[in-house]
Amino acid sequence: MPRFEKIEYHPTSVRELLLEMKNLSELMIDLAYSAALFNDRELAEDVLELENRVDVSSYLLEMEIMLAARDSKDAEALTGVSTVASAADKISDAAADIAAIVTQNIGIHPIVGEIFEKVEERLMRVKVAKDSILAEKAIGELELAARMGVDIIAIRRNKDWIIDPKEDEKIAVDDILIARGTSAGLKEFKELCKGKLRKLED
Amino acid sequence: MPRFEKIEYHPTSVRELLLEMKNLSELMIDLAYSAALFNDRELAEDVLELENRVDVSSYLLEMEIMLAARDSKDAEALTGVSTVASAADKISDAAADIAAIVTQNIGIHPIVGEIFEKVEERLMRVKVAKDSILAEKAIGELELAARMGVDIIAIRRNKDWIIDPKEDEKIAVDDILIARGTSAGLKEFKELCKGKLRKLED
Repeated sequence: MPRFEKIEYHPTSVRELLLEMKNLSELMIDLAYSAALFNDRELAEDVLELENRVDVSSYLLEMEIMLAARDSKDAEALTGVSTVASAADKISDAAADIAAIVTQNIGIHPIVGEIFEKVEERLMRVKVAKDSILAEKAIGELELAARMGVDIIAIRRNKDWIIDPKEDEKIAVDDILIARGTSAGLKEFKELCKGKLRKLED
Repeated sequence: MPRFEKIEYHPTSVRELLLEMKNLSELMIDLAYSAALFNDRELAEDVLELENRVDVSSYLLEMEIMLAARDSKDAEALTGVSTVASAADKISDAAADIAAIVTQNIGIHPIVGEIFEKVEERLMRVKVAKDSILAEKAIGELELAARMGVDIIAIRRNKDWIIDPKEDEKIAVDDILIARGTSAGLKEFKELCKGKLRKLED
């Protein structure tokens, strides 16, 4: 469903916007595959929401590029940036197409499931419960990679997305975490998020 | 440059075609980023060639899907497959757009280089020399991952591409290997391929 929010122009750097678009589009592909594999409607809806965000970034970036080009030499150099941005946009569209299979209840053909299953590492989407021991902890101090082979690749906090969160980012109650890892590691991680497991093992 | 080869119909499974399209499109994105980062024309040309291959697979897959649908239930279930295929096609188009920045000599804007550099693991494209000790060895026996943190992700042999080669695949003289790894590991690997380094260290 397209949204018709007003896009406000607030100056951001071309570099930041392009990096965001590239990272988001790659994350979206992984999320879309996971959503299709596990028939996960919420994850699929996240992908569609992110697609909207990439579209906005793409629009802002085109404006920035125009403003940055002061002469024909600038303009020539910036066409490459524009091409990479539109490639990221295409990739995010492709991810949204896959996510729409889930949200439109088309049903996942066994062949599709089989093919996405080849992805060894899996993604999980989990909400942080009020009594989770992860709440208020910085990601770095949890040492999730060493402890259980899990990596938090994105946080959805209210309407915001924090992609590739830094070590000092603190996990908050009600955060929705997108994590990547082995199935055993993710299982443990889910218990921690839900407050069912109350101790970090060494 | 588009090619106008005749596409012959030879029966292949929907599963195989879809898996090939998915794997190829993901590889192409990585290759395109590397090509742009290192301004590597040959790698960029590989991406454009692979795009052609994905297009052919896409065409064959659509035919297979039509032949597989015997009733409306089949047809409904197969629309999901078709969506995933067209998503892979879009991703490969995006990769080709990025590769075209290199082949068309548009020049890589510093911002683009900076953004692709964030990719920690790098890709390398290297040809196996006549006197390389890798020639005639099976990939598995080389233990490249353990020895130098390098992984051969694709082989280009004459006009063929072997994506994600198996452990028992033998490396041949004149193979072009696409490898992923740390910059130190890839440096050593390149010397081995070129026959300058004659010993595998433990």
